[in-house]
Amino acid sequence: MATDDLLKQVDFIKEIDKLKYIQRKTKLFNSNRHENDAEHSWHLAMMTIVLAEHSDVPIDVLKVLKMVLIHDLVEIDAGDTFIYDTQKNHTNTNEELVAAKRIFGLLPQKQADEFIAIWEEFEGGLTAEAKFARAMDRFEPLLQNTSNDGGTWAEFDVSYQKVYDKKKAIKNGSTILWNYAESLINQSVDNGILKKEKLD
Amino acid sequence: MATDDLLKQVDFIKEIDKLKYIQRKTKLFNSNRHENDAEHSWHLAMMTIVLAEHSDVPIDVLKVLKMVLIHDLVEIDAGDTFIYDTQKNHTNTNEELVAAKRIFGLLPQKQADEFIAIWEEFEGGLTAEAKFARAMDRFEPLLQNTSNDGGTWAEFDVSYQKVYDKKKAIKNGSTILWNYAESLINQSVDNGILKKEKLD
Ligand SMILES: [Ca+2]
Repeated sequence: MATDDLLKQVDFIKEIDKLKYIQRKTKLFNSNRHENDAEHSWHLAMMTIVLAEHSDVPIDVLKVLKMVLIHDLVEIDAGDTFIYDTQKNHTNTNEELVAAKRIFGLLPQKQADEFIAIWEEFEGGLTAEAKFARAMDRFEPLLQNTSNDGGTWAEFDVSYQKVYDKKKAIKNGSTILWNYAESLINQSVDNGILKKEKLD
Repeated sequence: MATDDLLKQVDFIKEIDKLKYIQRKTKLFNSNRHENDAEHSWHLAMMTIVLAEHSDVPIDVLKVLKMVLIHDLVEIDAGDTFIYDTQKNHTNTNEELVAAKRIFGLLPQKQADEFIAIWEEFEGGLTAEAKFARAMDRFEPLLQNTSNDGGTWAEFDVSYQKVYDKKKAIKNGSTILWNYAESLINQSVDNGILKKEKLD
């Protein structure tokens, strides 16, 4: 009775349930409980609809939502890559591309192509929508870590400069959000939860 | 440095983290682990972008996404209401309205008004967008329960007729999805995971 396309879509809907099992390094607000990728993706979507007005340039909010909702699905196969990991670079690993093709490939061809293109646009970080989506992805853990006495910064001994360099991507999406983010980073130094590296 | 509006938005973003602690009765696919409301909301958003083409009438997908992303936020204060609960009716309880005003009220006034209106539109179930969003909200647990040997139907001894009556709301959003949903319900009877009430 159901069309072939619908059956493929249902297979995809079942498969992506696995995102709820992918644990992130960061923890919930004022909490010791790790966040999972599905919760994280929902939170970025909420931040997108709440904060879209602060984008420096007009953005297609629907496209940004698609980006943040799907951006971590490749981690079902490739696993979570910690942003401050020094061994593995997050940017466009081949493993992630293979994962994207397998997971989005469950969908009808036209939809698979659309989702892969949106995921690649997000990874590329060049369009206004990708810049804003990536700003959301940087902003959430900043809020989490400052609520958790440094969170992953403290746990993995990440320096002020490394945090600053990663968070600066927020500026590509929104000057207003970046000004606020920068003040949070500076406060974190003042509070002693983020350390500047000593000069030799 | 940050505008007053941004500080309000950040307060809201922090507050809604609590959705991740609201446990639903339903469980993940092929799993014994309960789903939480944030994971559920993310999954409905994914289903919306994947299945929107099956809506009987054209819909504003961005609005449907807003609906499904925020539809359970009131449960932060009011708690999850189980759809087959015979004691408490889910529809528009006063407790939920108070919760909506408090939680969305953290946002700047204009945004608070917009979100409350969207939540009320979802609850009302009358517009094309609300009908489709509500279809998603009914469809996800149907897929979950059929993957879990009846899931909450078996656990709480819910009869075929009650399931059928609740799931029929899918038809208001999409005939194609309803035809598929109905076939899943009938299969569940055939498989013995859903029981028709005996006639005396
Ligand atoms: Ca609910």
